[in-house]
Amino acid sequence: MTPYEIITHKRDGNVLEADEIDFFIREFNAGKIPDYQMTALLMAIFFQGMDHQETRSLTDAFIQSGSIIDLSDLPGAKADKHSTGGVGDKVSIVLAPIIAAAGVYVPMISGRGLGHTGGTLDKLESIPGFKIDYPIDGFKQILRETGACLIGQTKDLAPVDKKVYALRDVTATVPSIPLIAASIMSKKIASGIDSLVLDIKVGRGAFMRDEQAARQLAKTLIRIGVDYNKTTSAVLTAMNQPLGYAIGNWLEILECIDCLQDRGPGDLMEITICLAGIMLHQAGKVSTPKQGEKIAVSLIKEGRAWKKFIDIVRAQDGDVSFLEDTGKNPESKKIVDVTAKQTGWIHSADALEIGLTAVSLGAGRMKTTDRIDPRAGILLKVKTGDYVEKDQPLARLYTDKPQILPDAIRRIENAITISEEKPVVEDLIIDMIYE
Amino acid sequence: MTPYEIITHKRDGNVLEADEIDFFIREFNAGKIPDYQMTALLMAIFFQGMDHQETRSLTDAFIQSGSIIDLSDLPGAKADKHSTGGVGDKVSIVLAPIIAAAGVYVPMISGRGLGHTGGTLDKLESIPGFKIDYPIDGFKQILRETGACLIGQTKDLAPVDKKVYALRDVTATVPSIPLIAASIMSKKIASGIDSLVLDIKVGRGAFMRDEQAARQLAKTLIRIGVDYNKTTSAVLTAMNQPLGYAIGNWLEILECIDCLQDRGPGDLMEITICLAGIMLHQAGKVSTPKQGEKIAVSLIKEGRAWKKFIDIVRAQDGDVSFLEDTGKNPESKKIVDVTAKQTGWIHSADALEIGLTAVSLGAGRMKTTDRIDPRAGILLKVKTGDYVEKDQPLARLYTDKPQILPDAIRRIENAITISEEKPVVEDLIIDMIYE
Repeated sequence: MTPYEIITHKRDGNVLEADEIDFFIREFNAGKIPDYQMTALLMAIFFQGMDHQETRSLTDAFIQSGSIIDLSDLPGAKADKHSTGGVGDKVSIVLAPIIAAAGVYVPMISGRGLGHTGGTLDKLESIPGFKIDYPIDGFKQILRETGACLIGQTKDLAPVDKKVYALRDVTATVPSIPLIAASIMSKKIASGIDSLVLDIKVGRGAFMRDEQAARQLAKTLIRIGVDYNKTTSAVLTAMNQPLGYAIGNWLEILECIDCLQDRGPGDLMEITICLAGIMLHQAGKVSTPKQGEKIAVSLIKEGRAWKKFIDIVRAQDGDVSFLEDTGKNPESKKIVDVTAKQTGWIHSADALEIGLTAVSLGAGRMKTTDRIDPRAGILLKVKTGDYVEKDQPLARLYTDKPQILPDAIRRIENAITISEEKPVVEDLIIDMIYE
Repeated sequence: MTPYEIITHKRDGNVLEADEIDFFIREFNAGKIPDYQMTALLMAIFFQGMDHQETRSLTDAFIQSGSIIDLSDLPGAKADKHSTGGVGDKVSIVLAPIIAAAGVYVPMISGRGLGHTGGTLDKLESIPGFKIDYPIDGFKQILRETGACLIGQTKDLAPVDKKVYALRDVTATVPSIPLIAASIMSKKIASGIDSLVLDIKVGRGAFMRDEQAARQLAKTLIRIGVDYNKTTSAVLTAMNQPLGYAIGNWLEILECIDCLQDRGPGDLMEITICLAGIMLHQAGKVSTPKQGEKIAVSLIKEGRAWKKFIDIVRAQDGDVSFLEDTGKNPESKKIVDVTAKQTGWIHSADALEIGLTAVSLGAGRMKTTDRIDPRAGILLKVKTGDYVEKDQPLARLYTDKPQILPDAIRRIENAITISEEKPVVEDLIIDMIYE
């Protein structure tokens, strides 16, 4: 069994044995298999795919590279949600306090933004003082005391995945369902949860543009979860326009506050409540997802989700005075509106282009080493299907880099199209897929 | 235009533009594109292939990485032959003196053996003193004076190919027709020849086991040659059993001497004369390949090819006394015969397995850093279709490593199969493919 033979085996469309996958990942992690041989295997997997057993073995090899958080001493269910990433997707930040307020632990390990999609960690860090970097002990302590803790990827969980992902990112081997599945599931399984709901985004602003591929990914992820005795389900949701109105870290926190104070945008609330219903059902708190949705709505209406959010932020060293008095955080130096050039119906608001424009204003990164401006971003004033008059604002742009604005304004003008006919507004929730 | 975009482009099955290929190869050669991105592109090419224009661009990019030998000051045609490699394939060593004796220059740049196939350079180096490493000036000088010079790959010709090949060799991306074509043709075109004949081996002991793929490779190579105004043709030849009887460097030189003294094995002479006919025709010395064959035969019969061989060896510092008195070179320390276990017809003599066994005896390398024992090898006593009595010798093994012998004997016993029915002996020359 040599790396060369294993690459050849996969290249020629054979099914790799568990010990071949385990050997390859272990030796790569130990620095004994060079990056170029790992790349050869990754590209061979891109073309030849992996069956369920192989994907499971790869997930296992990733998990074995690190430790598994033991949460068995916390009494009760531990639930998590994972999104494949979109523009304006701040669902986790609204969802975690709802679920924790319902008495279910939420040990949530999130990521940073890259490219056109934002990251939960960057959003949370726009709250002054908020810490996302805790050792496992500290993470468990906050989880025990507040019911939720939202942290960044620790180097203890599936560390080899980080090395593999870094290679995939520069070798055009990211869009491979088995590779995506092993990357997501290894970290989730190692984080000590009992159940998981996946928000698989589909559309222009999503990683998966094709519904069939998204469905395939959902099934692959669910099957891996089930193998590890994690109750797992998935929701396919549309990501053609941004979710909610806010894109940009602090702007999105403000929108999360709106949601938790029961005045959030319809689309964002629809997905959040849907996912909350499934999570509470999976955690055994209710006998149907619908009942879970009702509980989630009432936790918001009663202010208990908002109170839980304050508790979580405080536990993670965030300065809650900025949440209670949202005017305390200064706005960007330059704020301009983009206005409608004609009267008509909003036909589309291109999530990809709007996300990239927000990055250019300072809200995100194109490289992992780029610095983020937490206050920069875009506040949309319209959604697809809205009617606008000429000169009415379509979006407000926030930046400290005024030199970017002329280009950003042009991009937003092009990204938001207006037509004379009312468009058919697509369903936000495309499908729910259970085990 | 970034490396990532180019990889993605090819991964998704698009045709790469000349400037994309040129950029990628140039930046890789300059160390600005890392090995793992080159590997990603190579594996994408393995799966998606390349059309003629892309293969041509890749060949061009390889050529541009080094210099082109200018032989225009040598009066007359410059012809070369390239084999895709087989077991016992010593054709070049017999062919070069024949062609040179006919008044055609043979500027031949050869390779070393790796795995089960031998290399012309290793065979020549088993002649005491023989040098294969000359600067371009020295190479031209010998060529001018003797009509042929057989040297190793210089670092001046298509140097990036060597780096790319080293990666292909460890990432399972060798068997790709466009990659093979660019690698072969870039070096040949840079070597200053006018015409080229390709010996494409097909079968168990060949790199191409499948006739259709070999035919495809032949057509690809010819088309590239034609693009560069090199008269190019190909012969598809069977490589299921070793060519000739000798496998092992000095043993093969002895067999070459036999050939040049008009007592060579039939199969080896058949291919050599066929290729010589084509080369003399392509060089404009005769009006048909058949006429060229007749000249080749007479050059051997008259001893002129043998005399030319002596001249070439002497010009390259080889000690010709070892050729004139072949008993002067001591034999291996251990010589044993493998005998027939039954009476019957030789049904097959597995070239791959015999080649690998010869390597184990010391005749070749599995890694480029392995040392070769020039005297080690195998002298077959039979060919497919021969009739043998029980206990009659099938092969003689030569080695200085007696501990290898028990295993080697067993392997040869299994590699040479005997049956009660006379087998149909296949054609050695499967096809000739002209421009």
